[in-house]
Amino acid sequence: MMQGVVQIPEELKSLEDIIASGFGAVERIFAEQLVSDLDPVDEMCEHVERYRGKMLRPMLVLLCGAAANPDLVKLLESGSSDQIMTNAHTVSGAVCEMVHMATLVHDDVLDEAEIRRRGKTINALKGNETSVILGDYLIASAYELCSTLDSPIPSRIVGKASAVMCSGELLQLHNRNNYQLDEPTYFEILKRKTAALIGAACELGALSTLGFDQQSHPTVQALLGFGTDLGIAFQIQDDVLDLTGTEATVGKSVGKDLEKGKLTYPLIHHLANSASKTRSLELIEAISHGDESGLPELLELVKHTGSIEATQQMALSFVDSAKERLNDIPDGPGRPMLQLIADAVISRSH
Amino acid sequence: MMQGVVQIPEELKSLEDIIASGFGAVERIFAEQLVSDLDPVDEMCEHVERYRGKMLRPMLVLLCGAAANPDLVKLLESGSSDQIMTNAHTVSGAVCEMVHMATLVHDDVLDEAEIRRRGKTINALKGNETSVILGDYLIASAYELCSTLDSPIPSRIVGKASAVMCSGELLQLHNRNNYQLDEPTYFEILKRKTAALIGAACELGALSTLGFDQQSHPTVQALLGFGTDLGIAFQIQDDVLDLTGTEATVGKSVGKDLEKGKLTYPLIHHLANSASKTRSLELIEAISHGDESGLPELLELVKHTGSIEATQQMALSFVDSAKERLNDIPDGPGRPMLQLIADAVISRSH
Repeated sequence: MMQGVVQIPEELKSLEDIIASGFGAVERIFAEQLVSDLDPVDEMCEHVERYRGKMLRPMLVLLCGAAANPDLVKLLESGSSDQIMTNAHTVSGAVCEMVHMATLVHDDVLDEAEIRRRGKTINALKGNETSVILGDYLIASAYELCSTLDSPIPSRIVGKASAVMCSGELLQLHNRNNYQLDEPTYFEILKRKTAALIGAACELGALSTLGFDQQSHPTVQALLGFGTDLGIAFQIQDDVLDLTGTEATVGKSVGKDLEKGKLTYPLIHHLANSASKTRSLELIEAISHGDESGLPELLELVKHTGSIEATQQMALSFVDSAKERLNDIPDGPGRPMLQLIADAVISRSH
Repeated sequence: MMQGVVQIPEELKSLEDIIASGFGAVERIFAEQLVSDLDPVDEMCEHVERYRGKMLRPMLVLLCGAAANPDLVKLLESGSSDQIMTNAHTVSGAVCEMVHMATLVHDDVLDEAEIRRRGKTINALKGNETSVILGDYLIASAYELCSTLDSPIPSRIVGKASAVMCSGELLQLHNRNNYQLDEPTYFEILKRKTAALIGAACELGALSTLGFDQQSHPTVQALLGFGTDLGIAFQIQDDVLDLTGTEATVGKSVGKDLEKGKLTYPLIHHLANSASKTRSLELIEAISHGDESGLPELLELVKHTGSIEATQQMALSFVDSAKERLNDIPDGPGRPMLQLIADAVISRSH
C-alpha cells in the first residue's frame, strides 16, 4: 500500500506491517458498510469502489494512531503489536474514506467530469440525479458507521469537518470567475475544502489511541496541525497537477479548474507578478468560457513569471510546517514514517 | 403552528402550548446551527430557510416525546410542564427538519424544479452545483448538531434513516420509466424514501423522553410504527396531489412524477384495473417524454377506474393502522393529538 507511494526503509518495515493489516480491516469495514439489500444500490456502490485511489485519509488515520501511541516501540518489540490498531482506528479510517468518496461523486456532478481514476464517472454513466443520491448514500453510510463507535465525539468531528468542507466548496463556487481572487481567500478555500477532513483524519487516529476525551492532548493537537498543513500542501499540488498534468499521468480530467472559472495559486501568483497581465486575463476568460485553445500559451506565460516554481515552493513550506508539528509527538518510528508521507504528497504526479 | 393544520379542541390546549414552546426552541437551534462565518454561505442558508413548511417532522418529535411520557397528565396538571421538553427533544426536532430540508434541496436538483413553497428554488437561482453542495452542508450540519447529544444512538438512528432514505430514492431512479412497476416495489420505495425519516422522528421523540437506551421499549416501538405508517400515508397523499393538484394550491411544481417517469399508486392501480390500458400507456409515455398535453385525458381515464378513490382509501388504511399503534402508548392527551395529526396528513391539499 504505502510502497506504491514511498520507499520504506528497513527500520520502518515492522510499523508498515501493522499499518498494512489495519488497512485490510479498513477495506473490509468499508465494503460491509455499503452492502445493500437492494441490487441496484449494490451495483452502483461496487462501481464507486473503483474510485478508491491513494487511500490517503485511512492511511493517515492508522499512521497517526500508531504514532500517537507512547508505547509504540515497546509494543513492536515485545510482539504485542496486535494491540496497536483497534476497531476505533479502522472504523475511523473507513469513515474518512467514505466521506471523501462522497465528495468525489458530488464533485464529478459539479465538474461534469467524465473520467475518474481512468474509469467512467457515475454521472457520465447514470446521470446527475443518481450521482447526487449515491453521494448522499455514501455520506449517510459514513455517519451511520461512525456512530457505531461508543462516543459521540468522532461523529462530532466528522460532522464538523464535513460542514466546513462544504462551506469551502461554497466559498469557491461563490468566487467562480472572480479573476481578482486573492491569496487569503484561496487559502481559506483550501483549508476548508481539503485540509479540514485530512486534519480530522489525523485527529481521529490520535484520539482512537489516546481516548476520545483527549482532544486537547498535545499529541492530538500536533497531529491535527500536521494533517491541516499537509492537507493544504496536498491541494496546492492537486492544483498544480490540474494545470500542468495530462489525463494520462493524473488519471482524471485535467484543466478543469480554469474551465470552471476557479483561480488557483499558480495563476494568482502569475497575475500578481506579471508585468503585462492583460493577455493572461484574456486567455483565462476565454478558457473559462469553453475555448481551451489558449491553454498552452497561458502555461508559457505562467512559467515565465516563475509561478509554477513559486507554487511548488509554497506547497513545500506547508510540508515543512507539517513536519515541524511532529516534534510534539512521541519519539519512535511513527515520526519518520509520517515525514515520508508528507514528502510524498508534493512529489507525486497523480 | 398546529392550528394551521388541525382544529385543536379545548382539552388539548395545554399540551399544544408545550409543543408550541418546544417549537420555538427548535427554530432557534435550527437557525443557530446554520450560521456560518462566511457571508455567501449565510445568505444561501437564509434563502433555504424559506423552504420550511409544515415542519411535520419536528412536530412529531415533540408530540411523540410528550405522548411517550408516562407522567404527562401529572406534569401538565401540577404546572411542571417545563420538564416535558428537553434539549434532546428540540435538538432531535431540528436535526430531522434539517435532514429533510437537505433532501428537498437535492430533490430540486433531481426534479429540475423551479418553484418550491412559492419561491424560486436554489438551483434555479444559483445553479445545480451550489444546490448539491448546499444540500451537503445541511446534511453535515444536521449530523454535527445530532452528535452534540451525549449518546451516539441518535446519530445512529439518523444516519441509518438517511441511508435507507437514499436507497429508496435510488430504487425509484432505477425504476424510472418502468411502466410495469408493481405495488410491492412502490411501497418499498415509499417506506424507504419517506417513512424511514418520519418513523425516526417519532422514535427520537420517544427516546428523548424515555432514554436513548430504550429502543426496545413498547412505547418507542409503537411510536416508531406509528411514524412509519403515517409516513407511507403522507407520501401516498403527496403522490395524489402531484397528479390532481395545481401549482397554486400545492405551492410547488406539480405533475413532476410522471414527467420524470415515476409511476405512483393512482397510475399503478389504474393500469391494473383498466380494460383497455393501451391508450393510458401511450399518454404516460408521451408525458414522461415531455409532452404534457395528454395529462387531462389521462386524469379522466384514471378517474374512470376509480383509481383516485382507491388511492385515498389506501392512504386512509395506513392512517388507520398508524392510529391503531397508539393503543400501546400511555393514556393521555398525546394520543388524541397524534390522531388529529394523522387525520390531517391525508386531508391536506398541500
